[in-house]
Amino acid sequence: MNERPDKDLAFMLQYENVAWYEDGAVRILDRRCYPRTVSFVTCTHYGEVAKAITDMVTQSAGPYPAAAMGMALAAYECRGQSEAGQRAFLKEAANRISHARPTTAKRMQRVCETMLEAAEAAWKAGEPVDHVIKARAIEANNSRYEKIAKIATHLVARFPDNGTILTQCFAETIVGMMLKEARAKGKRLRIFCPETRPYFQGARLTATVCYEMGFDVTVITDNMPAFVMQHEGVDVFTSAADAITMDGHVINKVGTFQIAIAAKYLGVPYYVTGVPDAVHETAKDVVIEMRDPAFVLEAMGVKTARDGVNGYYPAFDITPPELVTGVVTDRGVFSPYALKEYGPKDAYEVVV
Amino acid sequence: MNERPDKDLAFMLQYENVAWYEDGAVRILDRRCYPRTVSFVTCTHYGEVAKAITDMVTQSAGPYPAAAMGMALAAYECRGQSEAGQRAFLKEAANRISHARPTTAKRMQRVCETMLEAAEAAWKAGEPVDHVIKARAIEANNSRYEKIAKIATHLVARFPDNGTILTQCFAETIVGMMLKEARAKGKRLRIFCPETRPYFQGARLTATVCYEMGFDVTVITDNMPAFVMQHEGVDVFTSAADAITMDGHVINKVGTFQIAIAAKYLGVPYYVTGVPDAVHETAKDVVIEMRDPAFVLEAMGVKTARDGVNGYYPAFDITPPELVTGVVTDRGVFSPYALKEYGPKDAYEVVV
Repeated sequence: MNERPDKDLAFMLQYENVAWYEDGAVRILDRRCYPRTVSFVTCTHYGEVAKAITDMVTQSAGPYPAAAMGMALAAYECRGQSEAGQRAFLKEAANRISHARPTTAKRMQRVCETMLEAAEAAWKAGEPVDHVIKARAIEANNSRYEKIAKIATHLVARFPDNGTILTQCFAETIVGMMLKEARAKGKRLRIFCPETRPYFQGARLTATVCYEMGFDVTVITDNMPAFVMQHEGVDVFTSAADAITMDGHVINKVGTFQIAIAAKYLGVPYYVTGVPDAVHETAKDVVIEMRDPAFVLEAMGVKTARDGVNGYYPAFDITPPELVTGVVTDRGVFSPYALKEYGPKDAYEVVV
Repeated sequence: MNERPDKDLAFMLQYENVAWYEDGAVRILDRRCYPRTVSFVTCTHYGEVAKAITDMVTQSAGPYPAAAMGMALAAYECRGQSEAGQRAFLKEAANRISHARPTTAKRMQRVCETMLEAAEAAWKAGEPVDHVIKARAIEANNSRYEKIAKIATHLVARFPDNGTILTQCFAETIVGMMLKEARAKGKRLRIFCPETRPYFQGARLTATVCYEMGFDVTVITDNMPAFVMQHEGVDVFTSAADAITMDGHVINKVGTFQIAIAAKYLGVPYYVTGVPDAVHETAKDVVIEMRDPAFVLEAMGVKTARDGVNGYYPAFDITPPELVTGVVTDRGVFSPYALKEYGPKDAYEVVV
């Protein structure tokens, strides 16, 4: 499984690899070991899809298509039941999948609800529910890709012709789209990627996408962003977000907050990509997921600390609007204090 | 080699383990693999001592006693030569050892010069030069320990009775002394240690000392200090320094700067321990060591990024005085802007 059919958008970002439903199974690229190993987790029960999300087989924006495809799988699993039985089964699946990770539960619910609507339409039309849900998942993803392409345009417009960019964690599709747009506009970018402990998404995933798309990419450890901003002429710090609240708070991979503090101190603008989240009016109701502390006590599977030492693993942190230069959406760049201007509710889709 | 003779000051901090000259060899505890493996590097040529320092067999304050003991070894190596020949040999050794790592070269020169003075005294008195140098190294170290004990007193006085402390990297002897003093004063401390990539000194060394001395210690990854300061009620951020310039800049393990920025933003005081460095009037002439970039592309010996991706590895960064709450010395706590008040030049010894 080492073919790379489209060098333009790196392998792991292709929709078919992120998560794909086919013949009663969902196949998910295992990002925990990519790119050292290219392997897939195959789920034949929606519960396995939820578990794969919990276990971080896929992360960043990966859980959204995985959830949608998981709903198609759930529809397949209950195909023999009455319509009422199927409805109950799908609702239970939506609930289970949405809560695979606490911080993104509200956004995941939105995805699953969209798939439940597709199921209702399928029953009305007498069509196979799994196929209709899968088609809706693909449609949602295409619409997401279109939006992200627009976001990339607005983001890259903020970069100089010869620029140095600092990223954080794995910004998923926007990284590929950003680089594609930079290339189209003839902008030369040098990219610094913090490695993103404990899972090394920056070193493994972001850096791989940048390299495969032909850019000069440098990995640093998570204690180096301030030094790099101070010494390497970083023009822009950019990250995606797991959520952007309507009052301008950015929920993203732990570490974003302290890079944003340093960026402000050093005069480097911080642009976050995504659309404001109608499901989160403020940051107050956001639950920060605390993951298994054992993960911070090891690196690449090797234990780092001695027995008896505690670990501590908040998956995300919250960056307040005063540290955010702009929220880069498909409709342009907004002040974090003016996100209501983004527009009507129907546009608030999941666009990580 | 797993006996731990004194539980009060953890194994790796005992002078005999840091670096020890005996019978024509210097034995250095290998901190790169401690505590998983307790092993020693044995050097029978002073060049091997310099190489061990370059290769980070010992770091933090370890290189200073290693340099002193390396000078004793050099004296042993040239014992058959004329006094002039020995003098030339020792000068060459001092030069080689001092430049094992660029950022600390000036401080290392000071250590080696002190040992050259001991050699001159030995020649005058007709005593074995290696023994005299070793005795001087032990004397310097005892004086250093006394100073650090005083520093610990002033530092711990800044802690509340039930406190939460954030460290950075491996603060060597001051960690042990600080905990001993806290225990003596009946202060209960909870300690958070960033793991300190790429070598994991925080996870491996600092956390081990804290645990062995009976404290509640938690390792975090280097992207978490701001989150921890925000959510875990950190009372004090403290670090040692590889150098403190006379104008109040702190040169320390990369990452210190960004933690200090976040600490200031979050209202957490930052106390650095050590004495101001007469050899560094300002930070302008400090050379930041750039180490082999390959180290940031792996973790615990396992590669993290794909081939073709660059690494970048500044070993230290520089924290300006505006981010430093106080410099905790053996003579009390000074403003980083008032280090001239510390006192006369003779006191400016190497006290990491």
